Amino acid sequence: MPELKTLATNELREQLSQSKASLEAFAARKLTLNLGRGKPSAEQLELSLGMMTVLGPSDFTAADGTDCRNYGGLAGLPEARALFGAMLGVDAARVIAAGNSSLELMHDTVQWAYLRGVPGSAAPWSAANPPTFLCPAPGYDRHFAICEAFGIRMVAVPLTGSGPDMDMVERLVAEDPAVKGIWCVPKYANPTGEVYSNEICERLAKMKTAAPDFRIFWDNAYGVHHLGSKHHAIADILALCGKHGNPDRVFIYGSTSKMTFAGGGVALFASSAANVKWLLKQMEKRTIGADKLNQLRHVRYLKDQAGIAALMEKHAATLRPKFAAVTGTFDKLLGGAGVATWTNPDGGYFVSFDVMDGCARRVIELAQQAGITVVPAGSTFPNNADPRDRNIRIAPSFPALDEVSKAAEGLALATLVAATEKILEGR
Amino acid sequence: MPELKTLATNELREQLSQSKASLEAFAARKLTLNLGRGKPSAEQLELSLGMMTVLGPSDFTAADGTDCRNYGGLAGLPEARALFGAMLGVDAARVIAAGNSSLELMHDTVQWAYLRGVPGSAAPWSAANPPTFLCPAPGYDRHFAICEAFGIRMVAVPLTGSGPDMDMVERLVAEDPAVKGIWCVPKYANPTGEVYSNEICERLAKMKTAAPDFRIFWDNAYGVHHLGSKHHAIADILALCGKHGNPDRVFIYGSTSKMTFAGGGVALFASSAANVKWLLKQMEKRTIGADKLNQLRHVRYLKDQAGIAALMEKHAATLRPKFAAVTGTFDKLLGGAGVATWTNPDGGYFVSFDVMDGCARRVIELAQQAGITVVPAGSTFPNNADPRDRNIRIAPSFPALDEVSKAAEGLALATLVAATEKILEGR
Repeated sequence: MPELKTLATNELREQLSQSKASLEAFAARKLTLNLGRGKPSAEQLELSLGMMTVLGPSDFTAADGTDCRNYGGLAGLPEARALFGAMLGVDAARVIAAGNSSLELMHDTVQWAYLRGVPGSAAPWSAANPPTFLCPAPGYDRHFAICEAFGIRMVAVPLTGSGPDMDMVERLVAEDPAVKGIWCVPKYANPTGEVYSNEICERLAKMKTAAPDFRIFWDNAYGVHHLGSKHHAIADILALCGKHGNPDRVFIYGSTSKMTFAGGGVALFASSAANVKWLLKQMEKRTIGADKLNQLRHVRYLKDQAGIAALMEKHAATLRPKFAAVTGTFDKLLGGAGVATWTNPDGGYFVSFDVMDGCARRVIELAQQAGITVVPAGSTFPNNADPRDRNIRIAPSFPALDEVSKAAEGLALATLVAATEKILEGR
Repeated sequence: MPELKTLATNELREQLSQSKASLEAFAARKLTLNLGRGKPSAEQLELSLGMMTVLGPSDFTAADGTDCRNYGGLAGLPEARALFGAMLGVDAARVIAAGNSSLELMHDTVQWAYLRGVPGSAAPWSAANPPTFLCPAPGYDRHFAICEAFGIRMVAVPLTGSGPDMDMVERLVAEDPAVKGIWCVPKYANPTGEVYSNEICERLAKMKTAAPDFRIFWDNAYGVHHLGSKHHAIADILALCGKHGNPDRVFIYGSTSKMTFAGGGVALFASSAANVKWLLKQMEKRTIGADKLNQLRHVRYLKDQAGIAALMEKHAATLRPKFAAVTGTFDKLLGGAGVATWTNPDGGYFVSFDVMDGCARRVIELAQQAGITVVPAGSTFPNNADPRDRNIRIAPSFPALDEVSKAAEGLALATLVAATEKILEGR
């Protein structure tokens, strides 16, 4: 494919009519395809099938004698805290193993900070004018939705490929005490796939914040979710925060939802002793404890870090061809055209697809007409405002491999149509 | 035992020294007993042992084809909503089947009402001056703790034996628009065991409230938790509210925690269509859905209303002797003394024990010294303020039968000592 911008106008018109014809032929196949859902496939869920029956009829007693069937254990089962603490690189005493959703833990920590403040707060975050979060973007729409629900102002911060633009972050947190938090997906980020560099982690831990009660919301959702042989590691953010005199700065979140069963996993919170104590104090008003049987099920099934790594390698084996189908199709159909870029991540759940400025909405519309669903335009940005209208999050995990290929083909055709239209408009 | 108040002072002194000697002899046995924990015994948990393995290795598909292992299903599994809707007497469409704790649902509904209001609110409840709940008392300490957490003012309302003092409730809700809610445990109430009469239910549904967004928090925690052959029914509060033009007035809560596994049950919310829609809208920000596998496990294990009834009868069979041990011991040691009254409930988890005015704190202290733990004094009242210092909640479910008997004996002895001291003080 030649670079489209270099084509003469009549060549572009020819290109447009060819691309349109291809897209129409694609649409005529009346397929129903979906690259919007960042959820595991049935094949991936099968990998943990053993968890269905790993607890025998009388296997309900934890190592400390706890009857997992009964009430209690607000912080979670000790062996679950130990197993997943080791996974997160945090001491078991600083880990809470909770229910089936880390999103809940993120929502609830924001909410209780908003209502009551956190350790170090002089007032609830709701008293800030207005409470503000930094949102490295493109990012995870559900993070932004939590801010929206509480009327928290969001400031988008560009990503660099190895974490947020720290010059901007440092400036914003230093000048405004209303800036209370930053959302970070530090490893195989949603959707960009980037991994935060050690330097960026250290700057986050070290930076001077006008708010004494600033928090990093460290959503390590993809900590063990490698795709290939390159297993990235990230810095120990909790230790770095401690080293720089900000021991309570980070709230770490994790989850087994994309390891075992998406709807039946175990959610994790890890932080300083003061933050863990604070969160337990809030949680105590709303629950007597999470489902410890499900935590025990996870401990029995995953066993140890080797067990986790072996399971995650099986996930990677099913995901790799799907990611390759997306990037391979894009290479083939869009390579050289100069109208889009896309990531080739080493882990996580997404390909981040940047089309020509001002084209994402149109690409998504055209794809929809051709039977392909992706996330709504703008949804990877705070307030659904993609300033360049260019980013599309692609989730290849859920559909079957041949559907992923077809969907990527249709999306590429839609991209060619939209880009050619756009270039022609400018002539 | 003669009525203590009728004894001459020297007889009372003699009685006190006898009671003290008995209590000291009891304490010398160095027992460790606990009547404080309203949780099922291991024997009760065994009744649902089949639930551990009821899901076979490939049994993860719901009737509508949902893969219960994956994300989704915010309102819960359709068959769980149907099964538990029927249990609550509410149409499945108006039921949400959620996580493992109805306390969470109560907490979260209060919180979102506080932050954002409910259908019919002109403003968030936090704007009321101050937001106020009526608290029929003695009641459930965790209800009161939720109010405390949000700074909601609590007004204690006496119970009548068949629900709250409705003259007082009607007056309070009519005169003050800041009165936003009332906590009700309508069946086998915690701790009084009372069952709300149809008349009281109707008055709750019908009463004029100054707040257009008033809600009844109807914690039907013991709806199927009969102890004997007398199975009480309560009025259909949702229908009554509708009939009287207040369709959105009631939030109903339920749970299987004291049916199957206390820590691994299914929590339920039921209400009007508008309230269900409102709650789902709030929940959507914090979770993608509850653990549907655990919901499926419950559906498979309990099957239908007959299955639920059969299980609950087995619970009753283990609980009856324990309740009888408490009331029988009290009859024997306190009968006729005129220093305490106690309930003999037809269901639920508690015996409500009223000692002489001004004696509960002392009885609890003496019992503690004799090795018996009960809930802290005052904990059945808002702000821990038992105006007559007389109520003690007794939970006989968890300890073994002989421990229940011993603990009741020690508590009775402590009651005699405290009462005799008190009467002598007044001479």
